[in-house]
Amino acid sequence: MKLVFLGSASCYPTPTRGVSCTALQLDNGEVWIFDCGEGSQIQIQKSCIKPGKITRIFITHLHGDHLFGLPGLLCTMGNGQDPEKSQNNVVHLYGPLGLRKYVTTSLSLSRSPLIYKIIIHEMIPRPDQFPDDWKNWDFDHELTDLSLPQEKSHSRVSFDEDKGCWPLLQEAGFTVVAAALRHRIPSYGFVITEKSSPGRLNTEKLEEIGIRPGPIYGKLKARQKVTLDSGDVLEPDEYLGPAVPGRSVAILGDTCDSSELAKCLKDLDVLVHEATMENKMREKCVEFGHSTPAMAAEVAHSVRAETLILFHVSPRYRPVSSCDETNKHESADILLSEAVAHLREINNTRTNALIAEDFTEFSIPRHNHKT
Amino acid sequence: MKLVFLGSASCYPTPTRGVSCTALQLDNGEVWIFDCGEGSQIQIQKSCIKPGKITRIFITHLHGDHLFGLPGLLCTMGNGQDPEKSQNNVVHLYGPLGLRKYVTTSLSLSRSPLIYKIIIHEMIPRPDQFPDDWKNWDFDHELTDLSLPQEKSHSRVSFDEDKGCWPLLQEAGFTVVAAALRHRIPSYGFVITEKSSPGRLNTEKLEEIGIRPGPIYGKLKARQKVTLDSGDVLEPDEYLGPAVPGRSVAILGDTCDSSELAKCLKDLDVLVHEATMENKMREKCVEFGHSTPAMAAEVAHSVRAETLILFHVSPRYRPVSSCDETNKHESADILLSEAVAHLREINNTRTNALIAEDFTEFSIPRHNHKT
Repeated sequence: MKLVFLGSASCYPTPTRGVSCTALQLDNGEVWIFDCGEGSQIQIQKSCIKPGKITRIFITHLHGDHLFGLPGLLCTMGNGQDPEKSQNNVVHLYGPLGLRKYVTTSLSLSRSPLIYKIIIHEMIPRPDQFPDDWKNWDFDHELTDLSLPQEKSHSRVSFDEDKGCWPLLQEAGFTVVAAALRHRIPSYGFVITEKSSPGRLNTEKLEEIGIRPGPIYGKLKARQKVTLDSGDVLEPDEYLGPAVPGRSVAILGDTCDSSELAKCLKDLDVLVHEATMENKMREKCVEFGHSTPAMAAEVAHSVRAETLILFHVSPRYRPVSSCDETNKHESADILLSEAVAHLREINNTRTNALIAEDFTEFSIPRHNHKT
Repeated sequence: MKLVFLGSASCYPTPTRGVSCTALQLDNGEVWIFDCGEGSQIQIQKSCIKPGKITRIFITHLHGDHLFGLPGLLCTMGNGQDPEKSQNNVVHLYGPLGLRKYVTTSLSLSRSPLIYKIIIHEMIPRPDQFPDDWKNWDFDHELTDLSLPQEKSHSRVSFDEDKGCWPLLQEAGFTVVAAALRHRIPSYGFVITEKSSPGRLNTEKLEEIGIRPGPIYGKLKARQKVTLDSGDVLEPDEYLGPAVPGRSVAILGDTCDSSELAKCLKDLDVLVHEATMENKMREKCVEFGHSTPAMAAEVAHSVRAETLILFHVSPRYRPVSSCDETNKHESADILLSEAVAHLREINNTRTNALIAEDFTEFSIPRHNHKT
């Protein structure tokens, strides 16, 4: 499982940096995309990600730098594939209410036929997610036109009071939920949790009592009790090592307050959090609904993240790799240093911090034991 | 006046080639943009074009590779400008019916405030412009939601039977009309014609009869008759050289039949015409609504173009500048060679042909006399 950062800039794309788009490549090769700013399909072509492997796309919020590349990517995803074979493939899209209207309008007016099916899942914002000025620009977020010919179905997801989140997905060994963030428009953070895997089967111990590889091994691995012909009972826990915990990643949209995240999950492996401007610009940063490195570090601390990856950097900061001694005062490294310093100040020795550039890859290994 | 090609590819953008976007920079510094595929704002940043100088954007048709970069560009165009000073600026958008719905939906759902005003002019297609399968995908192209807060006004332009075109603009020394092209959806070619300028004032002849620089010079240049205090009358034609004809450029959208263009205008300075695939693929090319180099050359011949510029090249052809002896069989130069050969075959010695790559610039000088 690895993260591939396809765009690390905020606001607008430049020749040196793409806007928000992050790929999570699963162990089975499937790819999930988080946000899709303009030019993401070009960034994907430059990366190790294969568009045909994308099965789910999550949109954190509807600002253009997270969204305007989506229609183009949806078109590209069919390139070079056999339309007959692809017609039963389904791509799931998740995002705030309005996503379905955006996708349907863009693809219908441009008459872009997709060779696969799509299912759009829209999160209904809670009333408190709308900013005070929301009604100044009244625009219906519901699709009132006909749906896309390629839409298989669609769904609405409401806030789950008990869980404190929007439950989006529970299948194929993963759970995905969305937590509310505070921004200028409804914005979400996605928390992806892998199910734990059964521990190692102690085959030596089984062979000692004369049980050879076969169906009994499978039952024990599936944590089923086995009664032998002799009447003896094998308890799975006696033959299985400790379960291997699943990995957990949170990928957040734009935010100036991510405190709800801690209600959904703690002990994250990786937190991907924006850090748009440096600490001294905190006031301006929060005014525009964004976070500083210190704010991101506080969130990482509150969810006990092992790794904090900063991204969504203002165009005022240059990519670290393009900086040297002469221009290090303009480098995005400033943001990373501030996050590291803040973690030290609050005595957090658990969290490693790094900053993503375009095409940064970060592997998330399985742990045998959580610390 | 010069053309700057910002994207020369068809279909989808790649790291080596952008999709359709062509800038026409006027002598006064203003920039008009023709089509705006995804990534156009990045291509503009890489070029000599300043986004703040863009005053008009023309969209030939609503396919994604000509359209999906428009919302992002509209947002970028305000960057770094003073909102107070910009609020009375107006940017005009021209395109087929549906453009207003696309722009309004994209900018409203993403809540992208523009710091300038926009006016959208939509061309109403003639019934014969719709392909047979149009009704298979029924989608309302009218905006039924509220308009953008930044929309100053909007207009509809119908086909003018007498002129054989959609008249779009007649001001500031320019006329712009649109001609119908044949493609898979309604598509247009824009014809930009500059007004002719008065000829050179023969100041030597005026000074000989004792008339010195002053208001009389201005009146004669404006082709007004002047009666002197003596009662003598100065006829402007006696003191003015021949008028300098205005320049004319046609920039076409996707097309497999551009024959209507010749009804609007002949004696073009520059024809910018697509050439998606080579001559031997004519059948497939026309099936998808596109042209071959020979087809483009025929159009250039029919409108007596001085220069034919090919663009909108299938991704199967590499940019000429990236080719050498080893891969010249993959080069877009094949398309140019075919156009040149066809012009020779039909004994056209008037038209020069060239092929645009990304960032190709082509200056269009004023002629003293048309040939």
